[in-house]
Amino acid sequence: MSDVLDLTCDLIARPSVTPDDAGCQPMIAERLRNAGFDIESLRYGDVDNLWATHGSDGPVLVLLGHTDVVPPGPVEAWTSDPFVPTVRDGVLYGRGAADMKSGVAAFVVAAERFVVAHPDHTGTLALLLTSDEEGDAIDGVRRVADTFRARGQRIDWCITGEPSSTERLGDLLRVGRRGSLTGTLTVRGVQGHVAYPHKARNPIHLFAPALSELTARRWDDGFDSFPPTSLQVSDLHAGTGASNVIPGVLRAVFNLRYNPHWDARRLETEVAQVLDRHGLDYDLHWHRSGEPFHTPEGKLRAAAREVLTGFSGAAPEESTGGGTSDARFIAPLGAQCIEIGPVNASIHQVDEHVRVADLEALPDLYQRLIERLLA
Amino acid sequence: MSDVLDLTCDLIARPSVTPDDAGCQPMIAERLRNAGFDIESLRYGDVDNLWATHGSDGPVLVLLGHTDVVPPGPVEAWTSDPFVPTVRDGVLYGRGAADMKSGVAAFVVAAERFVVAHPDHTGTLALLLTSDEEGDAIDGVRRVADTFRARGQRIDWCITGEPSSTERLGDLLRVGRRGSLTGTLTVRGVQGHVAYPHKARNPIHLFAPALSELTARRWDDGFDSFPPTSLQVSDLHAGTGASNVIPGVLRAVFNLRYNPHWDARRLETEVAQVLDRHGLDYDLHWHRSGEPFHTPEGKLRAAAREVLTGFSGAAPEESTGGGTSDARFIAPLGAQCIEIGPVNASIHQVDEHVRVADLEALPDLYQRLIERLLA
Repeated sequence: MSDVLDLTCDLIARPSVTPDDAGCQPMIAERLRNAGFDIESLRYGDVDNLWATHGSDGPVLVLLGHTDVVPPGPVEAWTSDPFVPTVRDGVLYGRGAADMKSGVAAFVVAAERFVVAHPDHTGTLALLLTSDEEGDAIDGVRRVADTFRARGQRIDWCITGEPSSTERLGDLLRVGRRGSLTGTLTVRGVQGHVAYPHKARNPIHLFAPALSELTARRWDDGFDSFPPTSLQVSDLHAGTGASNVIPGVLRAVFNLRYNPHWDARRLETEVAQVLDRHGLDYDLHWHRSGEPFHTPEGKLRAAAREVLTGFSGAAPEESTGGGTSDARFIAPLGAQCIEIGPVNASIHQVDEHVRVADLEALPDLYQRLIERLLA
Repeated sequence: MSDVLDLTCDLIARPSVTPDDAGCQPMIAERLRNAGFDIESLRYGDVDNLWATHGSDGPVLVLLGHTDVVPPGPVEAWTSDPFVPTVRDGVLYGRGAADMKSGVAAFVVAAERFVVAHPDHTGTLALLLTSDEEGDAIDGVRRVADTFRARGQRIDWCITGEPSSTERLGDLLRVGRRGSLTGTLTVRGVQGHVAYPHKARNPIHLFAPALSELTARRWDDGFDSFPPTSLQVSDLHAGTGASNVIPGVLRAVFNLRYNPHWDARRLETEVAQVLDRHGLDYDLHWHRSGEPFHTPEGKLRAAAREVLTGFSGAAPEESTGGGTSDARFIAPLGAQCIEIGPVNASIHQVDEHVRVADLEALPDLYQRLIERLLA
């Protein structure tokens, strides 16, 4: 059994459902300490974070990952126990097999090999791991980034090992992520009987024109490689359940995924202006999940493109699509950020898996990239 | 204790929560049989209906009422037991005191006195009582009307004893009711992740313009004394509860209260046309609660106006407002229908009540009206 497969299996066997690290980070810390890394554990609340560094001064390259996984869901729906790593027909199954214990294990193996091959490399190679990427994401990399900001910790480049590939390993290079902003809206009316509409104010009717306007709006046409900014209403609830009662209140939740044309504050202002223009009596609470980030052409993107092209024989798609990742917290420190990892087709699903051949290729891919930057 | 107060208390003491008659109709049938009425019991399913007639041939005047009541709600919230009729400070309390055991008792007493005073009156005086007005209203007057239609039973005039007065007894004469039509709508989209809106179809967004159009529409400007037709959305639900999921389906319930400019079929067609024009993939189920009815100026309205004016010293407001009543099933038989009853301020509430002075005046009011029509 290869070193990376072995380590991935050891990690999957630890049921580190977010935010429980379940011993993953101590095991990794022990390996990296033996490889000559300096180790710092940063525990905030229930969350474990590991900061391991090798070398000194800049440039600083961070390998960013998480040891927590989403819950397995109904265990009986899995072909084999989600926390018993199982290889069938050249495929490794288990919760975290793709998202992202394979990436974490490949980071560790690549880092170990790199410092053996290049004991006197330039700059600093660092691993940053958290046990709260899938959960609240408050006491994970968000808090670590606050600490780094306070310390003046420099970060030049950040490679996130999230499963970014779509069909085959290395077919996609993520060079940015949209921002995410969630609004929770309460529109107040006056409850009443449907037979006496003049004595009530129906919040559904009051909100309808604003809803129409918000959902029809084209926010922009995209930005560089970013898709257009999008608002999606995910929840809409009003009504007492009785067909003869005009409800007194309407509640809506909506999410904006936005590109660097926008920041959260300006979007919040724009939405409030629409609601105000329609004369609504409302409360609106915002949750900012992360501003967008974008890594323009430069040394990191160029190195990643070359390595991926050499690796798979074709240039990767360079994309800013998809959800958010912890890179959103590192990018504001001034770091260029990219994401490269295994195929993401099975993440968060039952029978989550990674091809063993992909897994075994991953340390080599990461090592080549580290060498381009620090050797 | 007066006869009508006595009978109202006897009725309140029977906990006839819809559709349970709890012995009210047999007690009334016994009294009316003794007064010379022919009695017919029409039981459909769990519902008791009583048809009592005196006289023969036309014109036929029906006194229409119900013996069932809505549930009392939290009994501990009542000052006295809802099924123990209690007089305090000249007010009778109990479930059904206003809606409408007082009206039923007054009908019985008025009918008894009328046939004593006018044993050879013209036409037919009839009482029609049901125990399912407050519930499903399927096996009550709706079914009785079907039976009457099959029999060719003629009805010229119908007086419903529902609590129609707003502030003092006799201040309002109801001369029609709007129709009521409820639509239950399902709009289908395609569920997905908010980060990938192009892979999903958000039913909230798809429905928003149609919702705007339906709720903004002015259906008409009213009809004679009817208020304008109104559509009210009473329920609107979409969303899985997760802010990052585009829901796959939206459900809405809406109710139309409409005047004689419309009938249910035309309204259904109009609504469907709006949904079709917006290209929605939807299911729409309709529940027709009753077409509107309207009693134009004629012998019944004129008689009622004169009696009420003489009774209270001021002409009543002649209105078509409010909810529905069982008159909706009698009107299509070709009957002129009006509604006159006690003050409705406390109906369906805790501590439902009627002023004893109003209750004791009511048989005289009804008797004068019967005399105008049949004496």
